[in-house]
Amino acid sequence: MIHLNENFNKLQASYLFADIARRVKAYAEENPDAKIIRLGIGDVTEPLPPACVAAMRAAVDEMGTRATFRGYGPEQGYDFLRKSIAAHDFQARGANIQADEIFISDGAKCDTANIQELFSAKTTVAVPDPVYPVYVDTNVMAGRTGNFSKGRYKKLAYLPCSAENKFVPALPQKPVDLIYLCFPNNPTGATATREQLAAWVDYARANNALILFDAAYEAFIRDDSIPRSIYEIPGAREVAIEFRSFSKTAGFTGTRCAFTVVPKDLCAYTKKGEKQPLHPLWNRRHTTKFNGVSYPVQRAAEAVYSEEGQAQTRALIDGYLANARIIRGTLLELGYPCTGGDNSPYIWVKTGAKDDWRFFDKILKKCQVVTTPGSGFGLCGKGFIRVSAFNSRANVEEAMARLRKVL
Amino acid sequence: MIHLNENFNKLQASYLFADIARRVKAYAEENPDAKIIRLGIGDVTEPLPPACVAAMRAAVDEMGTRATFRGYGPEQGYDFLRKSIAAHDFQARGANIQADEIFISDGAKCDTANIQELFSAKTTVAVPDPVYPVYVDTNVMAGRTGNFSKGRYKKLAYLPCSAENKFVPALPQKPVDLIYLCFPNNPTGATATREQLAAWVDYARANNALILFDAAYEAFIRDDSIPRSIYEIPGAREVAIEFRSFSKTAGFTGTRCAFTVVPKDLCAYTKKGEKQPLHPLWNRRHTTKFNGVSYPVQRAAEAVYSEEGQAQTRALIDGYLANARIIRGTLLELGYPCTGGDNSPYIWVKTGAKDDWRFFDKILKKCQVVTTPGSGFGLCGKGFIRVSAFNSRANVEEAMARLRKVL
Repeated sequence: MIHLNENFNKLQASYLFADIARRVKAYAEENPDAKIIRLGIGDVTEPLPPACVAAMRAAVDEMGTRATFRGYGPEQGYDFLRKSIAAHDFQARGANIQADEIFISDGAKCDTANIQELFSAKTTVAVPDPVYPVYVDTNVMAGRTGNFSKGRYKKLAYLPCSAENKFVPALPQKPVDLIYLCFPNNPTGATATREQLAAWVDYARANNALILFDAAYEAFIRDDSIPRSIYEIPGAREVAIEFRSFSKTAGFTGTRCAFTVVPKDLCAYTKKGEKQPLHPLWNRRHTTKFNGVSYPVQRAAEAVYSEEGQAQTRALIDGYLANARIIRGTLLELGYPCTGGDNSPYIWVKTGAKDDWRFFDKILKKCQVVTTPGSGFGLCGKGFIRVSAFNSRANVEEAMARLRKVL
Repeated sequence: MIHLNENFNKLQASYLFADIARRVKAYAEENPDAKIIRLGIGDVTEPLPPACVAAMRAAVDEMGTRATFRGYGPEQGYDFLRKSIAAHDFQARGANIQADEIFISDGAKCDTANIQELFSAKTTVAVPDPVYPVYVDTNVMAGRTGNFSKGRYKKLAYLPCSAENKFVPALPQKPVDLIYLCFPNNPTGATATREQLAAWVDYARANNALILFDAAYEAFIRDDSIPRSIYEIPGAREVAIEFRSFSKTAGFTGTRCAFTVVPKDLCAYTKKGEKQPLHPLWNRRHTTKFNGVSYPVQRAAEAVYSEEGQAQTRALIDGYLANARIIRGTLLELGYPCTGGDNSPYIWVKTGAKDDWRFFDKILKKCQVVTTPGSGFGLCGKGFIRVSAFNSRANVEEAMARLRKVL
């Protein structure tokens, strides 16, 4: 008899962003004339950089001619892209990461979820709170948590983030094996200093723990003193996996390209306590369960590293960062304390609301502005909303004008 | 302390096709002038159909303009593609499958691997032998097998396929929960009749088992009496998940698009024996761990269903099928019994060799032709090679001329 994975039944309601999409859709259907402005899910709105469009178009044309057609590529990604990434994103910043330590994928969401397969089912997992829900839900599905009770899953270690610790969690008090960190943070927009990251690397080294470092928003860092990669911290190669994405860097949310860095020095332990490198395991997982990213998409991603591509993506992000400053400025003026929005596209706003979904609905219905309720990210998100800077300048200004009238 | 998933250590050597690629690369480097003809991995060689190229190019242009730019799409795929698939691939053949039962993905390899997550860790699994290695290796990684011993993994039920049963496995003698079937088969090229598939559906219904039906090669079926979908069999909606791909249908191996059908009638059981539908579980898995297929790729896939697209993909497959007839005819003439190659791009050739890798090497080094050693697909593959029809006519004819000189 076929039995299901009952861990799925521990999951609470639906996936946060699917939930928001459903509410917005219902509202839009009831109010077909409403001009809804979406500052919720954190989806980019500006077109792909021209350098990426040109590269992708050329690659599509290659696919239409026998002599230049490409079938299966290397599952790990084409060398042209892996080498560009290693050189520009890591080596240029003094981080010793080689091309063959980079695995191209179709999304950081998939990667942060799939990476778990490398670890023992008994791994104890720590997540920040508030947290990107994918880290939690995928661990629930994999059976690494207990049941949900009073807003939290049992067996999962939550690392509270609040104004008191500037939204950078303190080191765990009980030992944990696997730690999710995300900087610039989703949802709080907080960044971690070199010293703060070094403390985490030291912790992992001292405790034989492993850090899953989500750097999907690193391109928004404009303060040069803030590390953009965890591999800028000495010793991180032995204890950290880093996730990156072109989604927010270059507007690839609908185009799909990301990558994961698994350094060759990184090890986990067998039950007997023997050290074993993880690079061959991830390579095996990647080649067996994945078939590579679409060739034209990889060419579009490569174009991000061209001279034009670098200028265009910087301009794209500058635009979103200017939006972030406007949002942050408006909300501060309206008396709401804010984090993020300087080196991050997210502004984490303290509303003090008792019911975040009610606050969400109020802004949706009175301002036709979509945000994300803080409690969707965990218990410590209660009383906050996340506002995303991903929209046009005109829409952001219009949204802020509407908020000024209502809040 | 971070412990690894030691199930990975049960895996034998490397992934079959990565292994072949390595051997071919080594040979090519030693013999830079050798004109190697690849009839191994089953990768297509002919360009994308013009209708797909045009649709993809138009979609790339849309991504370059703010008004038409698309960010995150629905994780399950765009309606335009799901509806086209439901209408053309299923409803037109009398199979009752609706658009919202179709989940668009980036590959059938990923899907056949990921689908396991829906089932209990204790699920007993049956695979045909010979078998597409992904079914086996991903179950090993997930801990659903014991150790490897004498050519087989313990706890896995192998269903032998041979000339005696025309390469369609007999029903299991001991009960199993999850059964992988693949028709037209990879690697044997065998097809299953309506009666044979109906016997499997009846078995699954009677035993509360579930069939994972891989139909990646259905477009090669030219005999109208052979079912192209398992949903042409009454009752299959309640016991089968079907996997399809554009890789072989329309030359998408490097473009990446596939889909999985999870009917709403399909259930699995809780430990307490309660029936629970799987559609919401797969939907949750898909939305939580995946972010949808690249928009231009989905537009390219949609174009397969246009009038030109249908004519072009049919012509593409006709070309590969004509290659298959040439390969089959040549090998039969040389005295080697063959299966497949009529409603399939694969020809399964009985060589009687004691060491398949030695036979593989002989053909590689003497003929510069790449094949796939049968034993790479399992114990029952010993003494066979798989020859793929995916190449140009000229290359296939040249390869056959070389084989005639050596075999």
